[in-house]
Amino acid sequence: MGNKITLVGAGLAGSLLAVYLAKKGFEVNVYEKRSDMRKGEVERGRSINLALSTRGIFALKEIGLYEEIKKIAIPMYGRMMHPVEGELMFQRYGKDDTEYINSVSRSVLNMKLMDLAEQYENIKIHFNNRCTGMNLESGECHFTNDNTGENFSVTADTVIGTDGSASALRMEMLKLPGFNFSQTYLEHGYKELNIPPAQNGGFRMEKNALHIWPRGTFMLIALPNLDGSFTCTLFHPFKGEEGLNSLNTKEKAAEFFKKYFPDSLSLIENLEESFFTNPTGNLMTVRSGPWFYKDKVALLGDAAHAIVPFFGQGMNASFEDCTVLNQSIEKHGTDWKKVYSEYYDERKINTDAIADLALENFIEMRDKIADKRFLLNKQIEAELFKRFPDTFVPKYSMVTFYRFPYSTALQRGNIQQEILDALSEGKSSISEVDFSAGEKLVKDRLSAII
Amino acid sequence: MGNKITLVGAGLAGSLLAVYLAKKGFEVNVYEKRSDMRKGEVERGRSINLALSTRGIFALKEIGLYEEIKKIAIPMYGRMMHPVEGELMFQRYGKDDTEYINSVSRSVLNMKLMDLAEQYENIKIHFNNRCTGMNLESGECHFTNDNTGENFSVTADTVIGTDGSASALRMEMLKLPGFNFSQTYLEHGYKELNIPPAQNGGFRMEKNALHIWPRGTFMLIALPNLDGSFTCTLFHPFKGEEGLNSLNTKEKAAEFFKKYFPDSLSLIENLEESFFTNPTGNLMTVRSGPWFYKDKVALLGDAAHAIVPFFGQGMNASFEDCTVLNQSIEKHGTDWKKVYSEYYDERKINTDAIADLALENFIEMRDKIADKRFLLNKQIEAELFKRFPDTFVPKYSMVTFYRFPYSTALQRGNIQQEILDALSEGKSSISEVDFSAGEKLVKDRLSAII
Repeated sequence: MGNKITLVGAGLAGSLLAVYLAKKGFEVNVYEKRSDMRKGEVERGRSINLALSTRGIFALKEIGLYEEIKKIAIPMYGRMMHPVEGELMFQRYGKDDTEYINSVSRSVLNMKLMDLAEQYENIKIHFNNRCTGMNLESGECHFTNDNTGENFSVTADTVIGTDGSASALRMEMLKLPGFNFSQTYLEHGYKELNIPPAQNGGFRMEKNALHIWPRGTFMLIALPNLDGSFTCTLFHPFKGEEGLNSLNTKEKAAEFFKKYFPDSLSLIENLEESFFTNPTGNLMTVRSGPWFYKDKVALLGDAAHAIVPFFGQGMNASFEDCTVLNQSIEKHGTDWKKVYSEYYDERKINTDAIADLALENFIEMRDKIADKRFLLNKQIEAELFKRFPDTFVPKYSMVTFYRFPYSTALQRGNIQQEILDALSEGKSSISEVDFSAGEKLVKDRLSAII
Repeated sequence: MGNKITLVGAGLAGSLLAVYLAKKGFEVNVYEKRSDMRKGEVERGRSINLALSTRGIFALKEIGLYEEIKKIAIPMYGRMMHPVEGELMFQRYGKDDTEYINSVSRSVLNMKLMDLAEQYENIKIHFNNRCTGMNLESGECHFTNDNTGENFSVTADTVIGTDGSASALRMEMLKLPGFNFSQTYLEHGYKELNIPPAQNGGFRMEKNALHIWPRGTFMLIALPNLDGSFTCTLFHPFKGEEGLNSLNTKEKAAEFFKKYFPDSLSLIENLEESFFTNPTGNLMTVRSGPWFYKDKVALLGDAAHAIVPFFGQGMNASFEDCTVLNQSIEKHGTDWKKVYSEYYDERKINTDAIADLALENFIEMRDKIADKRFLLNKQIEAELFKRFPDTFVPKYSMVTFYRFPYSTALQRGNIQQEILDALSEGKSSISEVDFSAGEKLVKDRLSAII
């Protein structure tokens, strides 16, 4: 019993979860509101690059897709910073070239996950079917087929909502007494632009880096694509004299880029036109809980916890949800209430933590990375990591290159920041830093993590 | 133009607002999902007593209903505290008998507001019509008549959502990019019980007080009704050894009341039965914003900002919304975008403040009011108020007996708390308090407010 599962949403998390579930022998029906992206044009307006890292890779390995994804991933070994004037500066992410994040196309990854899912006889993806509601008591899910206009209902043993940050299932759960929810928008929007490949097909900037133009309250970033192009994203406040709302003519937009991102001007394709034809995106954090109701329904991925993109962890966190849910099923079988309850208890604290870390990292990326004190702290951090490889693991590494709980990364990261600040206080170079004091601080305040 | 207004919800705020708007000459159609409460039984399960105070009274005076409401209101001059053992203790709310809060029946007040509204030719209340959605761009509102099953749409120049904490209009606005929202439940639920009148028709406890049994993490309260009865409410955590979820037999419920509220046992009617037949309520804080979209729609009252009931300000805050919206209309006429924008800017900071104050006051009511230090602080507060009647106005009074912005009450209240804590530190009686130091602190940290 309990072997028929409805998934709402065939995005990254839904497609991956379908495979995890099919491997356990469940009969999985996935209802997706969009048409099959493998047969038509890809939707615009969502971020088209993702930074795949250790947590996401772990899940892809578990379902046996990693080797194939590796082929379409571009390693990014660090941040390449573009000042307004002067030399570019490279900041490595990991301890060496074995630690890197991967630029991957959202749509290509999604299509490959769907292809894999459809190789399983016990998975069926039903496209163009929009979820219009659910009876949370009976577990019956309602859909409208947007091609035929047909309305229909589906019953299953349990339902999992992988329908993204605007989740229709969460809308139903919002009415449950005791269901906590928040959606909080940033005062920044984003605009995607394109840097085309060079005429010879190569890359117009360093290929193996995430490019950043940090400018205090705003920033431009660029991630490499397989075809030699870069996808650029401007993250910028809506309000203010030079805010998105005020950049309302081609001249003002061009002037803005000329003033703050002069080296991008000759690279970005049709800047003035694209700035107005491309949509402006919003950025929000969604928190909710509990993510399940009885044995009938659970939420997973962005449907439960959407985060801002600045730690590159949105997809990785959703994939880790799947890993943890899969473990809970291994423990509790089809006792869905237990499965969901344990999954929620383990994940909630960690997805709250990555939401905070992602908001913090926006300030780091747009403002601090060009700061002298920050750069000195980075040097001290590398040295302490060398001296205490089992204890002082940089926060970025804990989140990106390890699978420690996000909450551990947040908590230890804060302690480590205090140690770094204490050691760099009043210092202008690493040669002045008192590392014997540093060793004492680490020993006093941190125990081994590895 | 712009003279036809749709209100969604004929509760307290909707009925009051209808009158404000009718007085300005607008054509007001109010759609209410419930049936006419004047013709049938009153819905159970919502708090049936309200504490009407200065802000609410001001609005009732403006629409000319206060004299009538005064007749059905019972003054409560202070808190009557019931310890587990020992004497009752009375704590006055205001400076003397001219300052009090009023116990009023929610349903009687609502019915009188509806009666008044229907005296206006330009107000029509349409009962049994449930809002099912709205087109935020066109301003078209959709309804289902739950008697006839008929679906219909209504257009008006603008729409105001007074449809309470589960607002259907807010559900639509939730989909707007940039609309921030949170609903946060307390870990406490509530259960209403009844103390009937004495056999002679009189009150079984002091009539002119709000009775409290403060017990640390939980409390029982009782408010007087016109017929000689009291409505009791237990506010209690769901979880824990003695939590609501564990009080699952008549014996356990009776034992719990015997242990913690022994003097209530002989007063509460059918305690053991009522405890299980009466529903358990939930308590939540709702925050949102912005409360309007273009010139098409605005939210008011609980639909925009539901708060927990512990400062007795839910209705008063909603009525003050109406007062402020009315002032904004006086200034900007039917330029609804300006009307709503100014109303929102003025109210948002203040409804956020009363939400915080209400959460704080729960801890004060259930825990602190029986504390020696708290009682000493209260005495010092009264003395400082006497010495600085224009400057040191107690926080409770600023919220309850004045119409200072809630945000002012919150901000000055915090400063005043620091002054009180400094003066009472290490003291056990008011005779030990250094009032010359107190005068200096007040002069240094506060300016006149009145």
